[in-house]
Amino acid sequence: MRVAAIQFDPTFGDVRGNLARCLELVSSVEADLCVLPELALSGYLFESRAEAMSLSQEPGDKELDALAGFAGRTGTTIVVGFAERAGESLFNSAVLLAPSGSRAVYRKIHLFSGEKEIFEPGDRPPAVVEVAGVRLGMMVCFDWIFPETARTLALGGADIICHPANLVLAYCQDAMVTRCIENRIFAVTANRVGREDRAGQSLRFTGMSEIVAPNGRILARADAEGEAVLVEEIDVAAARDKAVTPANDVLGDRRPHLYRLDE
Amino acid sequence: MRVAAIQFDPTFGDVRGNLARCLELVSSVEADLCVLPELALSGYLFESRAEAMSLSQEPGDKELDALAGFAGRTGTTIVVGFAERAGESLFNSAVLLAPSGSRAVYRKIHLFSGEKEIFEPGDRPPAVVEVAGVRLGMMVCFDWIFPETARTLALGGADIICHPANLVLAYCQDAMVTRCIENRIFAVTANRVGREDRAGQSLRFTGMSEIVAPNGRILARADAEGEAVLVEEIDVAAARDKAVTPANDVLGDRRPHLYRLDE
Repeated sequence: MRVAAIQFDPTFGDVRGNLARCLELVSSVEADLCVLPELALSGYLFESRAEAMSLSQEPGDKELDALAGFAGRTGTTIVVGFAERAGESLFNSAVLLAPSGSRAVYRKIHLFSGEKEIFEPGDRPPAVVEVAGVRLGMMVCFDWIFPETARTLALGGADIICHPANLVLAYCQDAMVTRCIENRIFAVTANRVGREDRAGQSLRFTGMSEIVAPNGRILARADAEGEAVLVEEIDVAAARDKAVTPANDVLGDRRPHLYRLDE
Repeated sequence: MRVAAIQFDPTFGDVRGNLARCLELVSSVEADLCVLPELALSGYLFESRAEAMSLSQEPGDKELDALAGFAGRTGTTIVVGFAERAGESLFNSAVLLAPSGSRAVYRKIHLFSGEKEIFEPGDRPPAVVEVAGVRLGMMVCFDWIFPETARTLALGGADIICHPANLVLAYCQDAMVTRCIENRIFAVTANRVGREDRAGQSLRFTGMSEIVAPNGRILARADAEGEAVLVEEIDVAAARDKAVTPANDVLGDRRPHLYRLDE
């Protein structure tokens, strides 16, 4: 199958313009899976929770119909980050738009820095969704630093981690290599670029979106600046062979009764 | 405090010679902690379990007295890998020789490749030992690929991961950077060098022993070949500050009730 990581610079507050840009970008590539950045519709640095709420969507909103329609017409599964409104609640979420029309949502469980003042943390385990026989896991940005996130997805059977991001620290892109090796899984990290100067802060996003294989090989990595559409042909079977040596299976060799992870 | 990673090429089967070399090497450096490689007393590629048994020690054996005596005289804590005999059982273990005379043992819980035919897997959780107010965790070689090992040590309060190794794959040295970042912990990986051609196999060990800081900085890294004694002055307090941002704590921000790690 063909997977794509799409890196661009969303314009803060311009949901309509960002949606149109997302549609242009996914239309520019032939792929079975396109991953777009975190909060790609709204931008990142909200002045307040009320502002974020005003730029939020429900997963079923008509605003997402154009992207969902593209998925249905072309057979391309799209994963994109957005501010999710759920009644009075607000989550930093990713939605998976499947060709079938189904829309699956993952709510970021580890909020980064000032996000804690805007969003509620996700309230459900990281999700795995099967599309056309491929098992897609979702996590969002800072979830990467907690190995439990990717591990939960791998143990749940995910073949590919779909990873929308708005990264500002320098660590993640190299750490995702470790995440792939330790779980023998693919990862598609779609990071944004550009900067935001708002809400008394100035952030530069680090780009370097990437597609990494289960053996840790970086199949493609974008530059730190500028838009990019990375596409790779991958064989999902590689993620179902958990053998790192003929005698070692990275999941089967675990010793859960000797781990002390709940302290 | 001063920590050291010692990289050398043990001679297969020459326990007395290897012990003498270990003593020379730890004597060549002034450090509060010296970590030596996995199976540093026996060598690695055993023809059989019986051969390994013949090259094994009990933790209290007089053979270890010279190293333990050095620890007592100089205040240097020594961690060294050895084949541990326990009645009829055989473990791939590390022993921590404290200046007080105490000897703490960790039995490798994730055996690599052909080790499964020689050793029993460890039967106890990864250990944390406090010496002079510093909390030392032990893991051995291939334990690195399972994030649960380092996580168990970090949650158990370890400041420093003491990591004897006989690495042959190419991944670990970079992956330890991720282990340090995700746990905000120090790691001292003491890998061996050289090659063994025995038991129908040929292995080259990858060296590149290293000392890594809680922010992922590689404080020192040895070459892929040749003996090396790396020494770094570290401030253990850095491992007790788990904040990766003012609002994010890599242990406190975990969401254990949302992880699914026991499948």
